Amino acid sequence: MELPRIVPKELDPVHHLKVMGRFVRRALKKPGLPPGTVVHTGPKSEERVRISYLDFDAQNLTERADVRDVSVLWGLCDSPTASWVNVDGLHDTALIERIGERFGIHPLVLEDIAHVGQRPKLEEYDEYLYVVLYQLEWHGDEEMVVEEQISLVIGSNYVFSFQERPGDDFDPIRERLRTGKGKLRERGSDHLAYALIDATVDNYFTILHRIGSATEQAELELLEEPGQDTMRKLQQIKREMLVVRRAIWPLRDVLATLMRTESALITEDTRVYLRDVHDHAVQVLESVETLRDVVGGMIDLYLSQVALRTNEAMKVLTVMASIFIPLTFIVGVYGMNFDFMPELHTRWGYPAVWAFMISTAVGLLLWFKKRGWV
Amino acid sequence: MELPRIVPKELDPVHHLKVMGRFVRRALKKPGLPPGTVVHTGPKSEERVRISYLDFDAQNLTERADVRDVSVLWGLCDSPTASWVNVDGLHDTALIERIGERFGIHPLVLEDIAHVGQRPKLEEYDEYLYVVLYQLEWHGDEEMVVEEQISLVIGSNYVFSFQERPGDDFDPIRERLRTGKGKLRERGSDHLAYALIDATVDNYFTILHRIGSATEQAELELLEEPGQDTMRKLQQIKREMLVVRRAIWPLRDVLATLMRTESALITEDTRVYLRDVHDHAVQVLESVETLRDVVGGMIDLYLSQVALRTNEAMKVLTVMASIFIPLTFIVGVYGMNFDFMPELHTRWGYPAVWAFMISTAVGLLLWFKKRGWV
Amino acid sequence: MELPRIVPKELDPVHHLKVMGRFVRRALKKPGLPPGTVVHTGPKSEERVRISYLDFDAQNLTERADVRDVSVLWGLCDSPTASWVNVDGLHDTALIERIGERFGIHPLVLEDIAHVGQRPKLEEYDEYLYVVLYQLEWHGDEEMVVEEQISLVIGSNYVFSFQERPGDDFDPIRERLRTGKGKLRERGSDHLAYALIDATVDNYFTILHRIGSATEQAELELLEEPGQDTMRKLQQIKREMLVVRRAIWPLRDVLATLMRTESALITEDTRVYLRDVHDHAVQVLESVETLRDVVGGMIDLYLSQVALRTNEAMKVLTVMASIFIPLTFIVGVYGMNFDFMPELHTRWGYPAVWAFMISTAVGLLLWFKKRGWV
Amino acid sequence: MELPRIVPKELDPVHHLKVMGRFVRRALKKPGLPPGTVVHTGPKSEERVRISYLDFDAQNLTERADVRDVSVLWGLCDSPTASWVNVDGLHDTALIERIGERFGIHPLVLEDIAHVGQRPKLEEYDEYLYVVLYQLEWHGDEEMVVEEQISLVIGSNYVFSFQERPGDDFDPIRERLRTGKGKLRERGSDHLAYALIDATVDNYFTILHRIGSATEQAELELLEEPGQDTMRKLQQIKREMLVVRRAIWPLRDVLATLMRTESALITEDTRVYLRDVHDHAVQVLESVETLRDVVGGMIDLYLSQVALRTNEAMKVLTVMASIFIPLTFIVGVYGMNFDFMPELHTRWGYPAVWAFMISTAVGLLLWFKKRGWV
Amino acid sequence: MELPRIVPKELDPVHHLKVMGRFVRRALKKPGLPPGTVVHTGPKSEERVRISYLDFDAQNLTERADVRDVSVLWGLCDSPTASWVNVDGLHDTALIERIGERFGIHPLVLEDIAHVGQRPKLEEYDEYLYVVLYQLEWHGDEEMVVEEQISLVIGSNYVFSFQERPGDDFDPIRERLRTGKGKLRERGSDHLAYALIDATVDNYFTILHRIGSATEQAELELLEEPGQDTMRKLQQIKREMLVVRRAIWPLRDVLATLMRTESALITEDTRVYLRDVHDHAVQVLESVETLRDVVGGMIDLYLSQVALRTNEAMKVLTVMASIFIPLTFIVGVYGMNFDFMPELHTRWGYPAVWAFMISTAVGLLLWFKKRGWV
Repeated sequence: MELPRIVPKELDPVHHLKVMGRFVRRALKKPGLPPGTVVHTGPKSEERVRISYLDFDAQNLTERADVRDVSVLWGLCDSPTASWVNVDGLHDTALIERIGERFGIHPLVLEDIAHVGQRPKLEEYDEYLYVVLYQLEWHGDEEMVVEEQISLVIGSNYVFSFQERPGDDFDPIRERLRTGKGKLRERGSDHLAYALIDATVDNYFTILHRIGSATEQAELELLEEPGQDTMRKLQQIKREMLVVRRAIWPLRDVLATLMRTESALITEDTRVYLRDVHDHAVQVLESVETLRDVVGGMIDLYLSQVALRTNEAMKVLTVMASIFIPLTFIVGVYGMNFDFMPELHTRWGYPAVWAFMISTAVGLLLWFKKRGWV
Repeated sequence: MELPRIVPKELDPVHHLKVMGRFVRRALKKPGLPPGTVVHTGPKSEERVRISYLDFDAQNLTERADVRDVSVLWGLCDSPTASWVNVDGLHDTALIERIGERFGIHPLVLEDIAHVGQRPKLEEYDEYLYVVLYQLEWHGDEEMVVEEQISLVIGSNYVFSFQERPGDDFDPIRERLRTGKGKLRERGSDHLAYALIDATVDNYFTILHRIGSATEQAELELLEEPGQDTMRKLQQIKREMLVVRRAIWPLRDVLATLMRTESALITEDTRVYLRDVHDHAVQVLESVETLRDVVGGMIDLYLSQVALRTNEAMKVLTVMASIFIPLTFIVGVYGMNFDFMPELHTRWGYPAVWAFMISTAVGLLLWFKKRGWV
Repeated sequence: MELPRIVPKELDPVHHLKVMGRFVRRALKKPGLPPGTVVHTGPKSEERVRISYLDFDAQNLTERADVRDVSVLWGLCDSPTASWVNVDGLHDTALIERIGERFGIHPLVLEDIAHVGQRPKLEEYDEYLYVVLYQLEWHGDEEMVVEEQISLVIGSNYVFSFQERPGDDFDPIRERLRTGKGKLRERGSDHLAYALIDATVDNYFTILHRIGSATEQAELELLEEPGQDTMRKLQQIKREMLVVRRAIWPLRDVLATLMRTESALITEDTRVYLRDVHDHAVQVLESVETLRDVVGGMIDLYLSQVALRTNEAMKVLTVMASIFIPLTFIVGVYGMNFDFMPELHTRWGYPAVWAFMISTAVGLLLWFKKRGWV
Repeated sequence: MELPRIVPKELDPVHHLKVMGRFVRRALKKPGLPPGTVVHTGPKSEERVRISYLDFDAQNLTERADVRDVSVLWGLCDSPTASWVNVDGLHDTALIERIGERFGIHPLVLEDIAHVGQRPKLEEYDEYLYVVLYQLEWHGDEEMVVEEQISLVIGSNYVFSFQERPGDDFDPIRERLRTGKGKLRERGSDHLAYALIDATVDNYFTILHRIGSATEQAELELLEEPGQDTMRKLQQIKREMLVVRRAIWPLRDVLATLMRTESALITEDTRVYLRDVHDHAVQVLESVETLRDVVGGMIDLYLSQVALRTNEAMKVLTVMASIFIPLTFIVGVYGMNFDFMPELHTRWGYPAVWAFMISTAVGLLLWFKKRGWV
Repeated sequence: MELPRIVPKELDPVHHLKVMGRFVRRALKKPGLPPGTVVHTGPKSEERVRISYLDFDAQNLTERADVRDVSVLWGLCDSPTASWVNVDGLHDTALIERIGERFGIHPLVLEDIAHVGQRPKLEEYDEYLYVVLYQLEWHGDEEMVVEEQISLVIGSNYVFSFQERPGDDFDPIRERLRTGKGKLRERGSDHLAYALIDATVDNYFTILHRIGSATEQAELELLEEPGQDTMRKLQQIKREMLVVRRAIWPLRDVLATLMRTESALITEDTRVYLRDVHDHAVQVLESVETLRDVVGGMIDLYLSQVALRTNEAMKVLTVMASIFIPLTFIVGVYGMNFDFMPELHTRWGYPAVWAFMISTAVGLLLWFKKRGWV
């Protein structure tokens, strides 16, 4: 006996992207490149990479929305003010390499920035810290959570943020920098990095609330008219939670390490704030686990309902069939055309058959009643 | 093929509140606020926030049930006596900020006090300890466990307790302070904090006993007349236990840390008592786990009963149908109207058919008996 | 749609006691009492509390079976000989308090002695160690494991054992003390405490063998005539194992701590023996886990058997019905009374119908044979 | 409603031995004996206990196959050569006590040697190490794994091995000692002990391969003709793996401790070899876990096959019955004997009924086809 | 009642190899050999063992593709340049022993090189490190993952790699050495070893993508036409993931240890790179776990679909049978041939029966509609 092939001959590329990109996540790159080779592995893009920066101290703020000449950034490195440089798009690897060379960033870090699908992690170097984390976005049309890798390089007076594509959860931070609300501008690059991470984790709660809504809806369906769609939704919810959990689980460890790191790049004051965001990460994880348990219970409930409905249909059928099949046999007997059937010719034959049939039916009904089937 | 949408278009807000508030717990606040912004996130309230305090030492006790001018509290800060200030209601964030400023409480702590849905936790600061825990209440009408976040700020000569709404498990403590029973008044603020935590944990046992009663009732149903309602109850019990577990699991760690903290705010004498309440927390957890196992076993039993009942109905049907369907065929044969059917015209035809049918039926019955179906 | 209420209006008190006392275990006491208040929480008893003691050294032994005046014990405290004082019954809390006061026992310990349902634990104080453990008893009539809390207070020259009710596993120890067999009398109070714990753990093996016997019996049933009773037995076995596991799991940790404690109350020589009893505790736990796995496998086997039997009944029914229902239809056709039915009047009609029916039946049988259903 | 009794009145002693001896393992001994009392608890034996020894150094070897006078061993204790004394049979407890006294072995060790069913463990004493491990044997007739407790007492110049019965995995070691192959004779008692443990662990691979073969066979059955026997085999395989796992799991820890022990009895050179055998133990465990996962998957596959076959039988029955039951009703209608049934007397009546029936059948068939049931 | 035998009499050798070699993995060797005996245990091979080496420093590179005289290698040992010696084929144990002797490799290491089926591991010796890892290959025909054991011996100026058979993932490394791309040639033997491990781990991602594709295909089937083949594929995917996980799980620990080893053989510079490959290993593991969860969810979905389809067939059958069986009984009644059946002779008899039957059918239909079955 031959086993079925488990790898298909050809595969719908769109669907492929969806699952592969989500569960294996890390794209393949050309094998055999030396480590530290910067290769972009995400979806190809034609758009120009956009660089913007905010350079600030407590008093002043300089903002540039679209830097075309990267050497403008060189000055930021040495100025006493803190700067936040944001790069939208990772396909211009030459650009990443130039920045890396100028700011003294390790080639392995540059490789990971471009090779999306990294695990959230913290790498400590003498001059800077490298943090990978994920921003989650809710795609309404496909109804799924989409990840975007964010790389932060945190130096003593700068923060670089590399994003796969434009659009992020950082706008409130930009606003706070511009208006000078809070003490963000006074506190330097490590506090800015904290603020970026905090904004990201805050957004996880929004995603969780979306998934929570979906869970409720599934529950209503379960109480009212459960079907295979309900089951499919519940499974889909479990999957989306896998994506959230995978983004947040390692981040929690990143934050715990960051909180206790001996690196001089993180000031004592910022550690209190990092404890706060670590706390939030633990809360998200806990909610994900609770929701998983709740959804697991709903799946069990659904399965038991299917089993029970089968059981009920079975009982109805058994009662109907068990009562009428014998009766049909009896009337069949007296429908036979034998010449010699004395019962047929007596006056009491017909009523007697009725009496017999009724008592049989009543007997069977009582027996089923005793078993609790009717 | 299109997958069903998992997020519904609109959602019943009441039901929403119920599940969201329970399983994701932490409400969303406006994104982009600087950390340390005090925003209340619980259900809105029109009621005035009520402040009360008890100021005491071994000899004297001053009680104020409803402080309207918050500056009355300022004196408590410097007096040598211990004080317990209780705040019912968190929506007056300006008030919380004023207290925080005067008593030197970190803005992140103030934020967490108002932003309910925190995880139970302990944060150590030089001047005070910040403890978050939950009081559980049994809501008879919805038959569910409702959580209320309690924030304790434990200073060297004061304890602040912030509650979401009036009503708590602390009345026995108030009574003991008033009557001077036990040594509570002699032992200072850390012992008072212990007493508050202890009262909260003691109440968890009450909740557990409620859930235990529900489990028993479900078990009785399971033995007598199990149905889909039984299954739903069992699932609901599992859920309520999730809520209890979520409240108590991190609290256990809080207590373990508190027991061993190097903070001078906790005296040696109080540590013995903290070990005791830690012990109780472990006991609650253990009972929750045991009950989960028991309820899990009951769910398995229920499912096996449904399967077995289906099996029994199936066997009854099979026996009835297998015996009578062939017989009905036989009588059908001799009900045919062919001109040429020699058997119909012999004298022994009719009895012979009966004999054949009876032996067929007996044979089938014996065969079913051998299989253990009758 | 309304959910069913999960907490019943009224509850059979007997059954209540059974489940509540077993799975939540710790009884509720009046809330609001100061810590250290000694309140008895077990079932009320009218019997007089019985105190007995054995005072011994290597040469001499004094035994008193029923001490009516508790002050007789005061001398034991100061004498150089070791003493074992056993108290049967915990409802005379005044007595416990008097003993506690004289022997300098912490109020929290006294509270835990009387408030049964504690978790097995070890608390180290300077002058004594406090150990809680459980004796298990097999109640033949209800066929369940019943727990009894034993509190040991181990001083430098005395051991107190507090029991909920008369009857224990300690008689062999008493005998060994009286006869002087082994070196028990020479080795002081810590070795006596070891002996008491050892006797308790040894008894767990007896309980395990009882549960093991039940498992075997269930297995025989499973091989011969499995029914819903088998399933219920298997679930009950799993529950009784929960009780055993809950008694032994924390005890293992108690013993590990006792083995390595820095307290001077435990001599070097006794530690070797404690390692031995720790080993036994681990063995009990391991057997419980193995039995759980075995019982889990039996439950799976049972469920698969039910599914398979349903499947077999289904196949018999399908074969019978699929063969005879079409045939019955055919004979029905020629039982119709239409005036114009030419087939009825040909000579070959009747045999042709038979031929057609036989070939249909044979064809269906062959098809079912190919599918492996007959 | 009464629950079924879970402990049977009487029990077949043979079957009893099988399960009890396997899953609870540790036999009961008379309670109340002082610790250190040497009591044999395995099956009774009439055979004489056989003692043999090998005394060797790099140059010489003395072998005695059956020592009748135990005092012959006394000399081995003081000689500079290494010796291996093997004792087959544990029922002569006086003998074990004599050896123990002469070689200074702790009474608790002697007790554990005779009281079989110990957990694999390592106990370190100043003069010797005590190791318990299990040899596994495949009993072809009952098709199960049988355990035999082996106790090793490892001194500076001797190793004692105590076995429950003759027959072991040590013959290759004996051969290597006799021939002097390898450096076994040069390396002293700790290396000999390593060799004995290594031979035992090597044999676990043989057992694993037996169980692996059984798994394959079950898989073939699963692909070809799965039945309840397949399920039972799979469950039996899981059980045998429980026995293997229980023998090896604690042994792994024993070896890890032995590898890192500070005892001078283990030389630096031997530690490398112990790391090797530790590695093998981990490999066995890993294979057991992998096989468990594989068998678990096979059980799931089996269960899904049963469900699917029920589903298929169900669909065949539904199609057959749904088509022919309505048709049988129709022909029944025209088999009625009413005087006034105009259809019966028209010429087109009979063909019209046929036309109606055929179109009904075709309609139903098409509907079933659309649902994918035919 | 006799239990079925679990070990078959004879076994198809081909199939045997497949499962045994995969799940128990470590082949049996002749028992009783002294440790350190080099025995090859993989499939026998007739091919000559091929040795090749690359000797290089930053400037020069010497390559020999097929060394026939092993003594050519002796010089590499002492030269200042780094060398990589690759051995394809392990059946020439004499050769392995000669190399081992000359390079001072411990006999236990030589034994493990030839005795394939080791667990991935790191053993540190003073002069060299021994690393075992697995290369995975996708065998398209059998659609399964095949493992090949790779042994690395890493000295200060050489790396030996021993492979079971020709063909590996190392070609890109060879190419980089030849072209001098990257800094591989400048960085010595530890960096070369890193590069070999990195190439191996990179290939795991390729395998994961293959398994990911299979998962997608199974998902498409599940949405469109799920059958028992789908279930079998899902189980097979789970198995292949077991193989991948088993290869990578211990490797992760190997890499973590290598990263932090105190051995001087690993330079500070290489540690950063080892952290990178460790990271990749964790990513592979995480993806395997995610895929397992996803596949687990798909299995649940499949099972629920089977149950639901049974339920639907059941309902169709129940509705059809429950409506037509009573009607067939009624028409049977009036097909009886009793002389005295007054209804038969009235004019309204026939229409009245029709009216009665139609109202019965409609009533039943309405009842089923209320239950939601039609």
